[in-house]
Amino acid sequence: MGRLIFVGLGLRPTDLTQAAREAIDSADEVVAEFYTSKLVGMDPKQIAQWLERPVRFLRRMNVEEEGEALIEAAKVGVVCFLTGGDAMTATTHNDLRFRAQKAGVETEIIHGVSIVTAAAGQVGLQAYKFGRITTLVMPHGDYLPKSPFDVILNNRRQGLHSLVLLDLDTETERFMLVPDAAKQLVTFARTWNDPAITPETLAVGCARVGNPDQQIMAAPLVELGAADLGDPLHCLIIPGELHFTEEDAIAYWKQKTY
Amino acid sequence: MGRLIFVGLGLRPTDLTQAAREAIDSADEVVAEFYTSKLVGMDPKQIAQWLERPVRFLRRMNVEEEGEALIEAAKVGVVCFLTGGDAMTATTHNDLRFRAQKAGVETEIIHGVSIVTAAAGQVGLQAYKFGRITTLVMPHGDYLPKSPFDVILNNRRQGLHSLVLLDLDTETERFMLVPDAAKQLVTFARTWNDPAITPETLAVGCARVGNPDQQIMAAPLVELGAADLGDPLHCLIIPGELHFTEEDAIAYWKQKTY
Repeated sequence: MGRLIFVGLGLRPTDLTQAAREAIDSADEVVAEFYTSKLVGMDPKQIAQWLERPVRFLRRMNVEEEGEALIEAAKVGVVCFLTGGDAMTATTHNDLRFRAQKAGVETEIIHGVSIVTAAAGQVGLQAYKFGRITTLVMPHGDYLPKSPFDVILNNRRQGLHSLVLLDLDTETERFMLVPDAAKQLVTFARTWNDPAITPETLAVGCARVGNPDQQIMAAPLVELGAADLGDPLHCLIIPGELHFTEEDAIAYWKQKTY
Repeated sequence: MGRLIFVGLGLRPTDLTQAAREAIDSADEVVAEFYTSKLVGMDPKQIAQWLERPVRFLRRMNVEEEGEALIEAAKVGVVCFLTGGDAMTATTHNDLRFRAQKAGVETEIIHGVSIVTAAAGQVGLQAYKFGRITTLVMPHGDYLPKSPFDVILNNRRQGLHSLVLLDLDTETERFMLVPDAAKQLVTFARTWNDPAITPETLAVGCARVGNPDQQIMAAPLVELGAADLGDPLHCLIIPGELHFTEEDAIAYWKQKTY
């Protein structure tokens, strides 16, 4: 009896869970979608070597075309669908899952370590004090959507922290970094001139969260615009109101050097 | 050289990551804090057997008293501090971490699978459409704080989903379940009479998320008040506005039977 197993690999190779290892070992076919995620320190070729399994990498996940073939394969064999972070972060994954279930294919999700809780934990901010998550995107021509800035503003006005994920495109090897993000937010702040976020607003730049070479820096946005935190993946946190243990944490990252 | 390693064990035994396994194996001392978390299907005694290490269980984490001893131990040896879910969810853990760092002790966090992303993923709702997380608590006498209800109301008004965690006390083996939570929200809805949440509001009850015997049920709050989803841990999601793939997911859980 076949099944379709969605597996989150986490943030780095050693985040692999026992359940993920067993699922991958037992699979008849292993496919992976790393279009919008990446394991820190590992490219797709290395992933197959590391897992000791042939892995077929899907380019931009085409649910209409690839999805049908995966569902057919999962009717007769075990198909593992790998992603970075926790599983099911993309709308297309959910779409594939419920289409498979409608087609009578059993599905399963094996969860992995996610940047959502890891970034908060590493920085030392409380998970229940975060508002909505948002993602900053690389500008396409002159167009830059304002919606991520609105999310952060809205969180700030409620005293909540914002986790800001940064756009990446693994096919073209383009990764938005903390200084890109900070500069974009400074531009927004200057354009919209809202007291809730200014160029002097304190932010926390995070690079390679959860890895031994992780770097975290707390500084005003204007300063983060000139920061070099090294290789991707990066993300940014804009803190809201701070509890006193959170104040201690931010103070630590303000003075931390690498 | 010593260090203090915070290790998140995830939601179930097979969520153990390679990094966690290696840290636990290399530790001189393993302590655990399961006062406000629990691995599904395992009690503290079984955890020590499973990890094949002696584990000292801290009762209500007393940072003032136990914290100093842990920091002293971590000056000369490797101390692993285990929790359920991802690490660093409690304020006291963060406090201990930054106190250890101030005392010159190197600290490390090994992340685990968290209910925060797992519940959203299993139900099929998008992580970036969640507002602030909240926790419902068991009533102490006549007092019932309204703040969790306000968090959900505020999320609903913005069209955002709410993840509602449920109070537990592992020492007394008391766990709040989906029907308890649903009844509490119905009482709040009737008391405060706000159109954003009524007894008819659709909610999603989740039990043992990520485990093979997981149960998920989507129904109006009044119906969830009479639902039997089995053993803990439970949590609840109150959806906001639904994307069409999210509509498909909710429709699936409405008709799912166990």
